[in-house]
Amino acid sequence: MNYPNGKKPIMPLARQTNSKEISFGNRGMTLEEDINETNTYYLSRNKAIIHKKPTPVQIVRVDYPKRSAAVIKEGYFKQASTTDYNGIYREKYVDFEAKETKNKTSFPLSNIHEHQINHMKSVCEHGGICFLIIRFSQHDETYFFPAMKLFPYWESQFNGGRKSIPYKDVQRIGNLIPFHYQARVDYLSIIDHLYF
Amino acid sequence: MNYPNGKKPIMPLARQTNSKEISFGNRGMTLEEDINETNTYYLSRNKAIIHKKPTPVQIVRVDYPKRSAAVIKEGYFKQASTTDYNGIYREKYVDFEAKETKNKTSFPLSNIHEHQINHMKSVCEHGGICFLIIRFSQHDETYFFPAMKLFPYWESQFNGGRKSIPYKDVQRIGNLIPFHYQARVDYLSIIDHLYF
Repeated sequence: MNYPNGKKPIMPLARQTNSKEISFGNRGMTLEEDINETNTYYLSRNKAIIHKKPTPVQIVRVDYPKRSAAVIKEGYFKQASTTDYNGIYREKYVDFEAKETKNKTSFPLSNIHEHQINHMKSVCEHGGICFLIIRFSQHDETYFFPAMKLFPYWESQFNGGRKSIPYKDVQRIGNLIPFHYQARVDYLSIIDHLYF
Repeated sequence: MNYPNGKKPIMPLARQTNSKEISFGNRGMTLEEDINETNTYYLSRNKAIIHKKPTPVQIVRVDYPKRSAAVIKEGYFKQASTTDYNGIYREKYVDFEAKETKNKTSFPLSNIHEHQINHMKSVCEHGGICFLIIRFSQHDETYFFPAMKLFPYWESQFNGGRKSIPYKDVQRIGNLIPFHYQARVDYLSIIDHLYF
């Protein structure tokens, strides 16, 4: 990582508001940090190549000081048009979004955007492995939820259905992702189980 | 695209310095613009899902003005750790980097970084379709150059070999990518030809 001027980076607002409470399982790390560590571990063991895409930024103004790095002086966060993570595992294209909720009883669909749903549908049609990783931080549980199972919930909210997936449904339909010391969110074990 | 305050975005320095000269084939568009349009076309026809990853930015300071969007007040361009483009085509993982050179006689290897080479090697090992798109802007020609053919040139530069790939070699080993009105850099036609 490159920290010019020795300054530490900060995260976009959405991530700053994540729960920082310490529990035994995730030890205060956000889902994103856990997945990044897991991906680094997978990469180091040559198991899979999965990366998080950079946060999309609309750059409006840049200064080019002499003898030092270009500085972005004005920029804005843009909404991502795809999911956050993709890559390759066992010759298959893998694509997923990760979301954390403090809600105990359901996963609010407002966490997902319509263009992400469209992207996920398209990935499924093209034969990719596509899913959501949902963490219920209050339960300290992280689930693998196949995209194909998400779409009916998504559609239903526009036909008078509820605007969230009940926790019980996530438990029943999804797969609890095991925690390992090195693969903190070991989603490849679920992919092995479901797709191979 | 989201342009807060009606301000138009600017591109990072590296891209600003791209040739803007108008030629008949590419009509003054950069390689990146041509590939983005091609990918949008592929997506609209449901042929493939390939996206450019956002430019990685290290965000250092953000203001949160009342009643308006968060503003990045200090940020820096980071070096990408992977290639710029990836996605799925015909159930295969596709991964590539695109580079433009004004050099008439060779493609300088300094355009590629070592971690990108490592990433591309890894993608090849995992069964992905991995390649370079090289545009010789002075010749108005764009080539598909398989990653597997790139590695020997990369290694050779550390053993007294030349630090570039001769234009003649790119012509001989690579495939000239056809220009179509809608698919301006129609690289899927080359993938069809080489991998299926």
